This record gives sequence, structure tokens and C-alpha cells, in this order.
Amino acid sequence: MNLLKETVEKITPLNEEAGARARARLEQLTMPHWALGRLMDLAVDLAAITGHTPPPLTRKTIVTMAGDHGVVEEGVSKFPQEVTPQMIFNFVNGGAGVNALAGLTGARVVVVDMGVNADLGALDGKIISKKIGMGAANIARGPAMSREDAVRCVEAGIEVALELGRSTDVFGTGDMGIGNTTPSSAIISAITGSEPARITGRGTGLNDEQLKRKVGIIEKILDVNKPDKSDGIDVLSKIGGFEIGGIAGLILGAASLKRPVLVDGFISTAAALIAKTIAPRAQDYMIASHLSEEPGHGVMLGVLGKKPLLDMNMRLGEGTGAALAMCVVDAAGKVLTDVATFEEAAVAQADK
Amino acid sequence: MNLLKETVEKITPLNEEAGARARARLEQLTMPHWALGRLMDLAVDLAAITGHTPPPLTRKTIVTMAGDHGVVEEGVSKFPQEVTPQMIFNFVNGGAGVNALAGLTGARVVVVDMGVNADLGALDGKIISKKIGMGAANIARGPAMSREDAVRCVEAGIEVALELGRSTDVFGTGDMGIGNTTPSSAIISAITGSEPARITGRGTGLNDEQLKRKVGIIEKILDVNKPDKSDGIDVLSKIGGFEIGGIAGLILGAASLKRPVLVDGFISTAAALIAKTIAPRAQDYMIASHLSEEPGHGVMLGVLGKKPLLDMNMRLGEGTGAALAMCVVDAAGKVLTDVATFEEAAVAQADK
Repeated sequence: MNLLKETVEKITPLNEEAGARARARLEQLTMPHWALGRLMDLAVDLAAITGHTPPPLTRKTIVTMAGDHGVVEEGVSKFPQEVTPQMIFNFVNGGAGVNALAGLTGARVVVVDMGVNADLGALDGKIISKKIGMGAANIARGPAMSREDAVRCVEAGIEVALELGRSTDVFGTGDMGIGNTTPSSAIISAITGSEPARITGRGTGLNDEQLKRKVGIIEKILDVNKPDKSDGIDVLSKIGGFEIGGIAGLILGAASLKRPVLVDGFISTAAALIAKTIAPRAQDYMIASHLSEEPGHGVMLGVLGKKPLLDMNMRLGEGTGAALAMCVVDAAGKVLTDVATFEEAAVAQADK
Repeated sequence: MNLLKETVEKITPLNEEAGARARARLEQLTMPHWALGRLMDLAVDLAAITGHTPPPLTRKTIVTMAGDHGVVEEGVSKFPQEVTPQMIFNFVNGGAGVNALAGLTGARVVVVDMGVNADLGALDGKIISKKIGMGAANIARGPAMSREDAVRCVEAGIEVALELGRSTDVFGTGDMGIGNTTPSSAIISAITGSEPARITGRGTGLNDEQLKRKVGIIEKILDVNKPDKSDGIDVLSKIGGFEIGGIAGLILGAASLKRPVLVDGFISTAAALIAKTIAPRAQDYMIASHLSEEPGHGVMLGVLGKKPLLDMNMRLGEGTGAALAMCVVDAAGKVLTDVATFEEAAVAQADK
């Protein structure tokens, strides 16, 4: 608990002075005022987050946190649970969506076993093991994990951030866990107060009948567990999952290091809500990568006050949205470093 | 006129067979069905455009067409006309927004003088000269150019596409021309029938009073010239501009070569409307890069049946939107080439 407490205390306000210096340069670039719109807003945010103008953005790491979910017993996913470890082998072999998209900007993909229901000893040295258990318990019948395990999850995520932070300028989050849209939907509902029917989606591809059933299970999850929405650790322990806690910790750790963290999609944003509940100021260090096709995602982004960089009808997770959004981060950085000012280029300015 | 006619005849339907092969592979990738959404749609489009699966996407060229506009006499822009040649020097020196963003994917930026009101002889060998004249005439008082010059503009754009096509897999369009949102707004209004007040924007930063004046000038332009909306060459000659015609020609040339062409923002899309009017099938080879802040842009994209890849509140032109969207094109290509199938990765599939 000490690590969590210390980390939260290290999450300080943004460096507005660095942001103002970025803004001052952007206002002098050879173009009409703020003509690159959101790229310029993002450049200012990156400066304020890192405290540097231009912000360091070279070394990118997507952290894909994996865990299993006992709630799959309820039939909430079309894919069998063995797909979680199979996909981890796919990540390590470089064959998954997140690997392909991370390649766009040279981002590294680091996989963390937070609680996969399989022995991943064969991958020693290729993934980070922070295994808390062999999957979260079935949250339709009781809590996902003990309160102690919830703290351990979040602290494991913080440890990953601190370790990787030595060689990372920008973090991206990612998830892998068959069944994990169900706890994520429950978390949104618990924290935002939205009706499950409004924020529950088809996950990996449920039909109408299966979707209706999933909504019923989420209602049951909330009824059985009654999480305290003001207590992020309580929400995580009752209706979360190991990888969700790991992502929340990663976000808190990144924020404590003043590193921008690209929050991926639906599952990562549910983890971001938990991180915000634990440390409200962490929100300022989050960048929303994209708008997921899952209907609850926009609701969460509204609560976090974020407009997503991209809207590509994606719903894969893994960190694919964060990996694609890394291109936009690079673009924002280049606007700050590679465009000449009116003075540098000897171009006439607009009439005031 | 022969080149234009021949080019239009070479614009054939998309290769649906290549598109189907791309789709078949994408449906076998290790992820829920179509979970990368619009990246997958784009990959199919790129295969159908090029006739190849995977499509060749390595060599990218942004073509920035430049021209001046006599209508600046009416006070429609905040920037003086000398900014057009000044910005061309900035492009050549690599200091503009389009240079910075082209650098994201290693795209080349090629500048074409279609009709800048300055002697650019100092840039011989650094830009392509297709100069039709020293800027279009003031369209608030009469036609922009003769019908012959309009054909010459479009054919010059086609020539540029054919020449650069030898070393280009994907084209992006771009524009530079102080005052060119005014002819572009007039073109949208003429071709789509939208009221000028609905589709006219602030360009480089007009205030309310100046915007109102600009709307009045566009109404006058349409009244004075009465373009025939079914005849793209008539629209171009009466209310267009040299760089707008060049972009329309570039799009037609790219389509005749079966090369994807990323249409930049407001000015480029007005040129795309002219290209479509000349050769309706050219539309299938266009990819909409982004949604500009100019209010008429969405109206045009609707007419072209395109959903823009990005929405970043950008309104710079130059090819900046196309340059940023090249990242998304690369992403779509990587999804097709770098992600393993279920069989390749030995991952279990979903229940049917």
C-alpha cells in the first residue's frame, strides 16, 4: 500500500509554464492561427505533461496487460478462455494487431501476465510476470478478488511503469482477457451510474439474444457485489479483473513519472476510470486514443473529459488504438519541432 | 483535349476481385470479426483501387499545387498575396506544415507552380513549373480563365500524375494559394446547390463582419459567372483557379493509373468535385483524408459519398491532411501484411 500511496502523492499538477512555451511557439508558425487544430492542442498538452518544450516522444512502449475472468462461465464471450494465453504467444511472436500497428512508429510492445489462467513459464524472459492469480473469480457470484489482491494488482502496474519508465517517453495501454468487456461494462455502470443496457456492447461479437443475456449478467454483478463508486480499490476488487487493475496502476505510475499515457479503448478506459477514482489528478496525464465501437466508451470519455484522437470503428483492444494514436502524437511533436516560424522563414503575417 | 479524353477513358471500375481477396484474408486474422473496423475497410479499398493484395503503398508523394487568385482584390483573405510565393520557398526549404507531416511516413512533397503571381525562376529544378498564368482573374468580375486554359490546367495536373506515377504508389493532394477558399466555396455552391452562407467559412481567420462580406462576394461570383454545374470544365474556367484545376487533373491522372489518391481538405475536395463532374468514376479512387474546419467540407464529402479518415479541426491545406492520413494508409497496409491468421498462429476461433 506504501507504493500506491507514494505514487499518488507524486502525481502533481501539469507544468503550465512548459505548455505556455509550446503555445507561444505554435502561435508563430508559418500558417494561419492554430490551423493545425487538435495537433496543436495535443502538442501543448504533451509539453505540459512532460514539463518540456519540445516534449521527448521518441521511445514509445505499449504495455499489454493480460488476465482471465471467471465470469466467462456465464457465457458472456464467443471465444473460449484458452484464447487469452494463445494470444499472448501471438503477441510474443509479433503476429497480433497490436504488433502490426506498433510497428508504425517503432513502439515496443511489452506483455504483462497479470493473471492469465495458464502456466506461461515457457515465455520467461519474453513477458513480464506479475501474476496475482489464475484469473479473477466469477463476479456474477461474488467479488473478483480480495481487497489485498486489488492493491497488489495496482501496485504491480505501478512497478511496471517505473521499470519501463527508464526507457519510455510515451506509454500506451493495452489489454488481453477473454470476457473482459463484462467487468469493464460493470465498472462503467458502477462509477458513472449509467444503466447497463445503455453501456453494454457486443464485445467480440454477441448476437441480440446473447447481448440481452450479458446485460442481465451485468445487472446481477452489480446487485451481488454493490461496489462503492467512490473507492476505486473497492470497485476493482469486487467487479474488476487483474489486468484492469494492472492498467490502472500503469496509468498512475506513468502520471507519477510525468509521462503521457495513451489510453487504448473500452477496457483500458474502464481502468482509467478506476485510476481517476484513486487519484483524480492522473486524468491530466491521460490521452484518449480512439473511440471504440463499444457503446459505453463515449460515456466514459465524457466523464474523463476527453475527446478521442481517432474514430475508426475499432473494438479490438490489445493496445491497437494506442498504437495507431502514437502516429498522432508523433505528428504533434513534429509540428512543434519541424515547422518554421514566420520570422525563421521570412513569410508575411496576417493583418490583425 | 486529347490527353484529358484519353485519361478519362482509362479510369475503369475498381478491381473487385483484388478487394475480395483482401477481405478474405482480413476475415481470417487473429481477432474478432472486422475488429479493426475502418482500417480493414480501407485495406479492402486500397486492394480494389490498385488491383493488388497486398497493395503497394511504399512510395508516397504529396503534390502541392500553387496558384494565385485575382479575387483577393475584394478583400477575401487576411494574408497578402505575396504569401503564396513565400510559402513555396518555405515548402522547398522543408519548413512548412506539410513538410513536417509528410516526414511521418517518409512521403515526398512535390510543389507545382500552376499559376503563382510571381516569377519563381529561382526555384528551377526544385519545383515543377506548369504555369498557366500569373494568377486567375478576379471571379467577382468575370471568369477565372478561358475554357482553353481550364483544359490546360487539368491536363497539366494529369501530366504531373503520369510523370510522378513512375515513382509513386500513393498520391496525396495539396494546395497553396492566398484567397483560394473563395473559389472553392463558390464551386461547392455551384455543384451541390448549397447556399453560400451555409458553406462559406473563415478561411485563414476572418471575423464575423469579414465572413459576411465573403458570403456576399461568393453570391456575386455565382451571379456574374453562372457556371454550368454539369460541366466541370465550365465550372473551373468561370469560378475556379489554376491550382484547383491542377488538383482535379492530378486526381484524374492518379485514377487512370489505378493509384489511390488522398484528397486533402477544403480546396482539394472542391477540385475533387470538379474531377468527379468530368469523370464520375474517378470518385472510387479518392480517399477523404480528414474533415476540415471549413463548414462546406462535410457537404462536399457527402456528395462524394466519403467518410473522412481523420477529424482534427485542421484547416491549413498544403496537403497536411493528406500527409497525416498517410499514417492511416500505412496502418491499413500493415493490418493486411503483418497480422497472423488463426491458422498461422494456432489460435482458437469463435463459436459460430
